[in-house]
Amino acid sequence: MPDTAPPQTTGPEAAAPYEPTERTVPARSRERASYDRELVHSILDEAYLCHLGFVRDGAPVVLPTLFGRIGERLYVHGSTGSRPLRAAGQADPGLPVCLTVTHVDGLVLARSAFHHSINYRSVVVHGVARTVTDPQERRTALDAIVDHVVPGRTADSRPANEKELAATAVIRLDLDEVSAKVRTGGPNDEPDDLALPHWAGVVPLARGYRAPQPSDDLDPAIAVPDYLTAL
Amino acid sequence: MPDTAPPQTTGPEAAAPYEPTERTVPARSRERASYDRELVHSILDEAYLCHLGFVRDGAPVVLPTLFGRIGERLYVHGSTGSRPLRAAGQADPGLPVCLTVTHVDGLVLARSAFHHSINYRSVVVHGVARTVTDPQERRTALDAIVDHVVPGRTADSRPANEKELAATAVIRLDLDEVSAKVRTGGPNDEPDDLALPHWAGVVPLARGYRAPQPSDDLDPAIAVPDYLTAL
Repeated sequence: MPDTAPPQTTGPEAAAPYEPTERTVPARSRERASYDRELVHSILDEAYLCHLGFVRDGAPVVLPTLFGRIGERLYVHGSTGSRPLRAAGQADPGLPVCLTVTHVDGLVLARSAFHHSINYRSVVVHGVARTVTDPQERRTALDAIVDHVVPGRTADSRPANEKELAATAVIRLDLDEVSAKVRTGGPNDEPDDLALPHWAGVVPLARGYRAPQPSDDLDPAIAVPDYLTAL
Repeated sequence: MPDTAPPQTTGPEAAAPYEPTERTVPARSRERASYDRELVHSILDEAYLCHLGFVRDGAPVVLPTLFGRIGERLYVHGSTGSRPLRAAGQADPGLPVCLTVTHVDGLVLARSAFHHSINYRSVVVHGVARTVTDPQERRTALDAIVDHVVPGRTADSRPANEKELAATAVIRLDLDEVSAKVRTGGPNDEPDDLALPHWAGVVPLARGYRAPQPSDDLDPAIAVPDYLTAL
């Protein structure tokens, strides 16, 4: 994927890989790990949502949530009443989180049950989430989250007003301690299993957009915009 | 979904909803939360993978992994060298985890940026993961994980041998402290925004299986099995 995705950053500094740390080097399948910045960006940018983990009363909590990316910063938003966003605002210097994104690209069927697998691309980000207070950064972050789900949509919707902005909390997570993990290709069968009578191969998976369904109260004169048909 | 999914359990006890707890009652959008057992099962069973959260050195870790369900128990497997599985075996009585599954069913486009959303179905399971040591339960659990990804596949593959079983760790998480959260329907626009010239509605999403790709070394006489064409 990295060679087909448009570069998100330029310059030698931006192109340098993320520095591996003890917790971003996997305990196994290390050959599948990558710290390539453009690969990480492409996996993040293709996602609708992430799974955000944090610790509450000593126990882990994992919640699905939308997110946006601007350069080397990820943003998550939510109600000011939501638990992780409230916790990020109360913790000093912030809330330790783990933000994970996974794409399943295929089901890998081997002759042996043991070698069944999936083809996937995932990114795991470790760090400390901090509440964003700067009004301009908050607006830019919220735009990035909307445009992440539907590129081009921010320009074709009513911007948030002051009341809506006041009800929304935004947290920021820097891309610093980051790794990607990718599996591609077919099954890794044992040589002794190749003659077994079981089908082997990959069932590819892709995201399927269906035809946009207009709201019942939508003016019929408003056509489906190009940025939706382009999805 | 619960009314279209086949019942997974029977009897009055099995049909009783999960008991809400302080951490399974969401801080907001409580009307979207459900403790219905069949709804929870249907969301779990439709998933390929979950995001498993645990605490390591005081910080959260979220990893994608396959899982299986047998009745009121979830199973996750992995290499005996993987971190969460090793930790579950070392911790007494087990490893506190949070296992989360999310399906994105649609992108919800409102006239206002603020009311953009997604339609989704998610399940969050809190509990303590314990290593499974019983040989029969380990085999049954591993079969359930393979059949969860491709129903019917276990019967058409070579079962794990003793060496493979010895290299595989299995952990169990009981469905006890569980909640589902579901959003459906169109955008919730403000009345004042209805006349704005922006398209509003839902872009439905569905999982897209593509044609199975046989391995290069597959005997051409082995046809694509029915359980794959039925996906």
